[in-house]
Amino acid sequence: MNSSPFTYIEGGGVTSPQGFTASGVHAGLKKKDMDLAVLYSEVGFAVAGVFTTNRVKAAPLLVTMPRVAGGVAQALVVNSGNANACTGEEGLEDAHEMGRLTANLLDLPEDRVLVASTGVIGVRLPVNRIGAALPSAVAGLSRDGGSDAACAIMTTDTVLKQAAVSFTLGTHRITVGGMAKGSGMIHPNMATMLGFITTDIVIRPQHLQEALRYASERSFNLISVDGDTSTNDMLLVLANGLAANDPVEPDTPEFELFREALTTVCIELAKKVARDGEGATCLLEVRVKGAPTEEDARKAARAICASSLVKAAVFGRDANWGRVICAAGYSGADFNPNSFDVYLGDLPVALAGRGLSFDEQWATAILEQDPVVVTVDLHSGGAGAVAWGCDLSYDYVKINAAYRT
Amino acid sequence: MNSSPFTYIEGGGVTSPQGFTASGVHAGLKKKDMDLAVLYSEVGFAVAGVFTTNRVKAAPLLVTMPRVAGGVAQALVVNSGNANACTGEEGLEDAHEMGRLTANLLDLPEDRVLVASTGVIGVRLPVNRIGAALPSAVAGLSRDGGSDAACAIMTTDTVLKQAAVSFTLGTHRITVGGMAKGSGMIHPNMATMLGFITTDIVIRPQHLQEALRYASERSFNLISVDGDTSTNDMLLVLANGLAANDPVEPDTPEFELFREALTTVCIELAKKVARDGEGATCLLEVRVKGAPTEEDARKAARAICASSLVKAAVFGRDANWGRVICAAGYSGADFNPNSFDVYLGDLPVALAGRGLSFDEQWATAILEQDPVVVTVDLHSGGAGAVAWGCDLSYDYVKINAAYRT
Repeated sequence: MNSSPFTYIEGGGVTSPQGFTASGVHAGLKKKDMDLAVLYSEVGFAVAGVFTTNRVKAAPLLVTMPRVAGGVAQALVVNSGNANACTGEEGLEDAHEMGRLTANLLDLPEDRVLVASTGVIGVRLPVNRIGAALPSAVAGLSRDGGSDAACAIMTTDTVLKQAAVSFTLGTHRITVGGMAKGSGMIHPNMATMLGFITTDIVIRPQHLQEALRYASERSFNLISVDGDTSTNDMLLVLANGLAANDPVEPDTPEFELFREALTTVCIELAKKVARDGEGATCLLEVRVKGAPTEEDARKAARAICASSLVKAAVFGRDANWGRVICAAGYSGADFNPNSFDVYLGDLPVALAGRGLSFDEQWATAILEQDPVVVTVDLHSGGAGAVAWGCDLSYDYVKINAAYRT
Repeated sequence: MNSSPFTYIEGGGVTSPQGFTASGVHAGLKKKDMDLAVLYSEVGFAVAGVFTTNRVKAAPLLVTMPRVAGGVAQALVVNSGNANACTGEEGLEDAHEMGRLTANLLDLPEDRVLVASTGVIGVRLPVNRIGAALPSAVAGLSRDGGSDAACAIMTTDTVLKQAAVSFTLGTHRITVGGMAKGSGMIHPNMATMLGFITTDIVIRPQHLQEALRYASERSFNLISVDGDTSTNDMLLVLANGLAANDPVEPDTPEFELFREALTTVCIELAKKVARDGEGATCLLEVRVKGAPTEEDARKAARAICASSLVKAAVFGRDANWGRVICAAGYSGADFNPNSFDVYLGDLPVALAGRGLSFDEQWATAILEQDPVVVTVDLHSGGAGAVAWGCDLSYDYVKINAAYRT
């Protein structure tokens, strides 16, 4: 990290950038624990977003997507415990109502509030409970509320997912912070179910969108927990401009620096999502190099991370690298099948397309580390990519065999 | 089955058609159990095949594919316990040697023998053990050897997979039989790791290929166990012509009848593979109707069958239909997201794009049946498809956490 231009902010999150406040409360959508988050900026923010590619989109996405396309908003309200997906016209009205109630309490125009939901599909959102809890959520907005908000958006997540960095543009200190929730139904594209990034940089919405697309392709779109792309995936970045820098323009060093900071926060959050995949006991990091194109490298890395057989072998700390190259082979990535190398950590287990005899105890010791790092050199070009996932454990099955009941 | 033109042959398999003999022996590739199968026809057979789409193809496929393209062969040798994949030049030579040894014993030209392997990837094939066991395998070839052969190709399979039907063409009785092995690394395309179908019909290789393509798209390519397309998948059909019918030509009722018989046998075998997926406690049958095209219907049905979340919910007998429609949504199938219905058995759980309140006990009772039948009506056209899979259990994880060791 020595050469990084970024300062990591310990415990930082969505309220690390100037002007953002947040809160989390219990509205009763989950049996216990906080389940309603509000994020607010004292001034309007530029907004950009990427959304699930699932044909079935939850009601909050239908409300939020056109508002993001508009480019400007000032608050965000998120509930966990109910996805408000497959809920028909009533669900769409519920999502509007959740935004409207928040807008009224914050004295904002309705279209300045973004809404998001996560949880079980196909059950009507109890919007009355949200309405009852919103006043205390809004009253509780604070600069210290980032962690509460990050907590309130969790479902089967076991740890808070926050990250923040800062850097300098001329005389201006710029901060980028974020929170995410993941756990199940995690797969490119989009990977995280919910991710929200804040920053105080001055940037126009279309340039923010360009930076977000770059960052998401290198972070949330490169993680996989179970191959299921959810109906509710949403990644937003909110830029309120309070750092008062000169507006950042594309194709400048300033833009690239911001883009890297955004990518860094997204990768930190994405790795936390992968590490905390349902039932996971370790983070799986797959590095593919020597690919003809970056897209080939990403395809291979993602397929390896998503393979149930690879994931089960990692859970069993079994050096079954054949499954690794099998997954690369069906990924659609272009490569010469006679020339790949596979490494577990630094231990070569296959070279030039064929298996080596290797020290099984050493391999097992490597597989007992966290993260487990698998490297595949395709020897078919100069492009690379890194993807993240987790192992497949008994607990994944346990959690998902009875999530709803 | 009343209206079926086919007679199911109880306990039938690859030696049910005239002129085929088979055997299975223990060569020592697996610790115990049979692991080497030979299938032989007293006359040469027309052959057609479909093979894995994985870029990394095991050595036996590289040997067998050009021979299948040649259209004629007379014997097949298959080992389990070792996939002979990712084994380099030596592996290719081993696959050739396995065929050569078989050809010598059967007094056949080398290119008349097809070879196949299944098992662990990246370990060199102990071809000397195969050579030592082949004489007894060849000596043991018999009309009663179909079950032994089907047994010898099993890996983590728990049950034999055989099927056979017969039907009449004019005065000629035609028989179609087959065996398959599956269990893990099962996903379209190809689905089964190994499937071998025999028949005594008279048909030219190119027409046999056309019939096989039709049958495989409606059977093996519509099953999924874990989404991993293996390096070794192979489905062959061998037609030795001993039924002495007039040669079957495409676009005739006779061709269609044979194609249906072949499809029937392939579906029977494919369902057995899905039902016996690693750790499976039940067969999952997903029927999609109301799709714009058959391809859309297949995409949706396959994605639902392949979803880890759907499979875990079925294991938990949890009526989590939201995951069903989520999988349809990301499948790439075209449909109106506001108009789908979902049924568990005959119980509607979602209508017109939204959830219903339903009797949970009834739903659980339905999910405790085998097969579990899920029907999705997309109300977006007139096409349909059926796909098969299994649930995701603790045992899937257990089996795959320590398959190699």
